[in-house]
Amino acid sequence: MSSNFDAVDELIKQFSLDRDWDQFHTPKNLLLALVSEVGELSEVFLWKSDKDVEDYLSSNQGREKISEEIADVAIYLIRLCQKLDVDLLEIIKAKMETNNSKYPIDKSKGSPKKYTELDN
Amino acid sequence: MSSNFDAVDELIKQFSLDRDWDQFHTPKNLLLALVSEVGELSEVFLWKSDKDVEDYLSSNQGREKISEEIADVAIYLIRLCQKLDVDLLEIIKAKMETNNSKYPIDKSKGSPKKYTELDN
Amino acid sequence: MSSNFDAVDELIKQFSLDRDWDQFHTPKNLLLALVSEVGELSEVFLWKSDKDVEDYLSSNQGREKISEEIADVAIYLIRLCQKLDVDLLEIIKAKMETNNSKYPIDKSKGSPKKYTELDN
Amino acid sequence: MSSNFDAVDELIKQFSLDRDWDQFHTPKNLLLALVSEVGELSEVFLWKSDKDVEDYLSSNQGREKISEEIADVAIYLIRLCQKLDVDLLEIIKAKMETNNSKYPIDKSKGSPKKYTELDN
Repeated sequence: MSSNFDAVDELIKQFSLDRDWDQFHTPKNLLLALVSEVGELSEVFLWKSDKDVEDYLSSNQGREKISEEIADVAIYLIRLCQKLDVDLLEIIKAKMETNNSKYPIDKSKGSPKKYTELDN
Repeated sequence: MSSNFDAVDELIKQFSLDRDWDQFHTPKNLLLALVSEVGELSEVFLWKSDKDVEDYLSSNQGREKISEEIADVAIYLIRLCQKLDVDLLEIIKAKMETNNSKYPIDKSKGSPKKYTELDN
Repeated sequence: MSSNFDAVDELIKQFSLDRDWDQFHTPKNLLLALVSEVGELSEVFLWKSDKDVEDYLSSNQGREKISEEIADVAIYLIRLCQKLDVDLLEIIKAKMETNNSKYPIDKSKGSPKKYTELDN
Repeated sequence: MSSNFDAVDELIKQFSLDRDWDQFHTPKNLLLALVSEVGELSEVFLWKSDKDVEDYLSSNQGREKISEEIADVAIYLIRLCQKLDVDLLEIIKAKMETNNSKYPIDKSKGSPKKYTELDN
């Protein structure tokens, strides 16, 4: 079932281990790989209006393409966490707590303003 | 415990819901937000050698800073999946299967070559 | 006058020379710097509709902010060319010739399709 | 000769005009296009050490590939300036003046520190 993050994490770790790719996976290299995949994801959305994106998503081909590109970004992000020895789910939880403090509901509701621009 | 991806996913969804931010979270906007966070993550690594990155990571301040920036990228990636209605863990698993086919262990071991450049 | 690219190129080169920054400006570091600046440029556009962007641009503050972020991207791109010893204007001209072949006017007019998707 | 930025600028403008592509070139779309090209440029450097990059550059194929990817980034950056009606060379000159103030030679020499971290 979908909640098993650890299995996915392990899959990604084993994949690199099997191929002896640890030697290439320095943090900076993984970051460049991430940037490269974000570029590919951007290309999928290129020249498309919000409506076009929706239509594309509703096609099997489009949905699969977008899914693959998002997965590629995620895989390198998870790999980066493995190499830096940080726990992805834990740091997300910690950051969401910070975000909760930075963006109190009563001040942020309906506004996209950055926390530095919120009235005090 | 760390394997509970669903709880994190829900946390992120509720955060936007509470602030009525759905209106801003079009796929293209979320992609721009992701790019912006990848830029901040890059800045952390800027002008640092691999050794510098290691040293920075071993400091509390460095570890926290890197963790926060990675979390920001992850949060927008998860949010993008929510808006596109794709299951992040499932698409990662599917992509890893594809990667397994594209990069057979015996041909890829110890080589960073792209699958299009592997000998057949 | 604005057409003097060489003066700008020289300005950027001298700036690094004066600060003895050549040692940090490896191609990969400059690329990361570029990514970081593209992230900052993206942040300027974040959560803004096309109309919002237009309004922002018509304000002095907005125009200056966007100009600064674009300049930062350009500066690192020019710096990268200096370090790689490629002539930016020449490679742009060469690429535009390639683009002219890839995107013949009669097939590309009014269509955002990638050249690989154009009818032959 | 290489200093003629205006000719290159005009080439890029005419290319879009001939293809009636103005309609697709909103600032946010051009930014996504830029991100996509930065991703392709990153892919060229991927898994390469500084020495590998140097070797790749010294080959005709490598030099051409890198030049094309840099040109693609530059073309979208110039196109963005055209659509925003900002003068690229002027804003670079203005930013370099700002950088000169932010990074006084005596404090920045030999140090990659950000201006916010320089001693006062």
